[in-house]
Amino acid sequence: MANGISNEELVQAIRRATEEVFSTMLGLEAVPQEFYIERTAPGPAEGVVSLIGLAGAWVGTGSISCSANFALTISSHLLMTEYQAVNEEVLDAVAEVTNMIIGNVKTVIEEKLGGLGLSIPTVIYGRNFTTRSVGNGEWVVAPFLCQGERMAVQLCLAPNRGETLLRPGVANPQMAPA
Amino acid sequence: MANGISNEELVQAIRRATEEVFSTMLGLEAVPQEFYIERTAPGPAEGVVSLIGLAGAWVGTGSISCSANFALTISSHLLMTEYQAVNEEVLDAVAEVTNMIIGNVKTVIEEKLGGLGLSIPTVIYGRNFTTRSVGNGEWVVAPFLCQGERMAVQLCLAPNRGETLLRPGVANPQMAPA
Repeated sequence: MANGISNEELVQAIRRATEEVFSTMLGLEAVPQEFYIERTAPGPAEGVVSLIGLAGAWVGTGSISCSANFALTISSHLLMTEYQAVNEEVLDAVAEVTNMIIGNVKTVIEEKLGGLGLSIPTVIYGRNFTTRSVGNGEWVVAPFLCQGERMAVQLCLAPNRGETLLRPGVANPQMAPA
Repeated sequence: MANGISNEELVQAIRRATEEVFSTMLGLEAVPQEFYIERTAPGPAEGVVSLIGLAGAWVGTGSISCSANFALTISSHLLMTEYQAVNEEVLDAVAEVTNMIIGNVKTVIEEKLGGLGLSIPTVIYGRNFTTRSVGNGEWVVAPFLCQGERMAVQLCLAPNRGETLLRPGVANPQMAPA
């Protein structure tokens, strides 16, 4: 994760936030697994993926991905209601948990990276989709085991290079057709 | 769009930004269609959807949605290469265009809403997926016609209510299981 913060520090922040939110808000134990770095964006080809933006001197995206079944577990524990199918309430519950976890991570990493704004979460649910974030972003992926299911909390952060994020050779005004 | 900025002003900002980016960066004419308000999140069940977060005194998400075919058109014009299938370069091109359009919109609306940070775009491509953003967010949807295809640029904005965005009855600490 370039300068500013190490991957290990980031993973520590994610683990603490996830364990805390899971135990206090869901009454569930999330057991951290070995973290890894991924160059492509988060997301199973099937299941639930949430995304929330971070912006300040650093910019990035936080994400949670899990199976549809585990999204039901999260929702049932958060809202103390049984859910049998992924509906709007379930997607909202995953969004809420994403907001809490990444919000906690933000508070910790702000000590190193300066103030960061948190956007609103969007949740994607499907059977056949891929997600991809731009450019050379590396994702720090922190997997957890919970009730026999695997979920992952991941974060992609890069220094804010300005408003347009133009990269050489791509979207360069000199290249634009007349 | 509550206070701060009217839907009409937002649509004007989106139209100007989209027309400008399409004409200068893609050499394409995007013809604005009637705008509308949607309470659910952006996204076709099939095709390409990009998402980028905004955060400051107001928080939200900007999004572009279009068919896979139109994503190829965008990429071919941006990168001056023929694309026949949606690959990583195509998704990156859509991300880049999203960044440029929403970045321009941000600059305009900052005059009314104060400074906003822009996160990094994520692009979703699939045949069978839904997207949903939290809570009571209304999306202002600005559709465009371009080369016989329809695409939409949309924005969801709400005042920043703090870091956790807890809503009554949802994710309320008092409701959490012991």
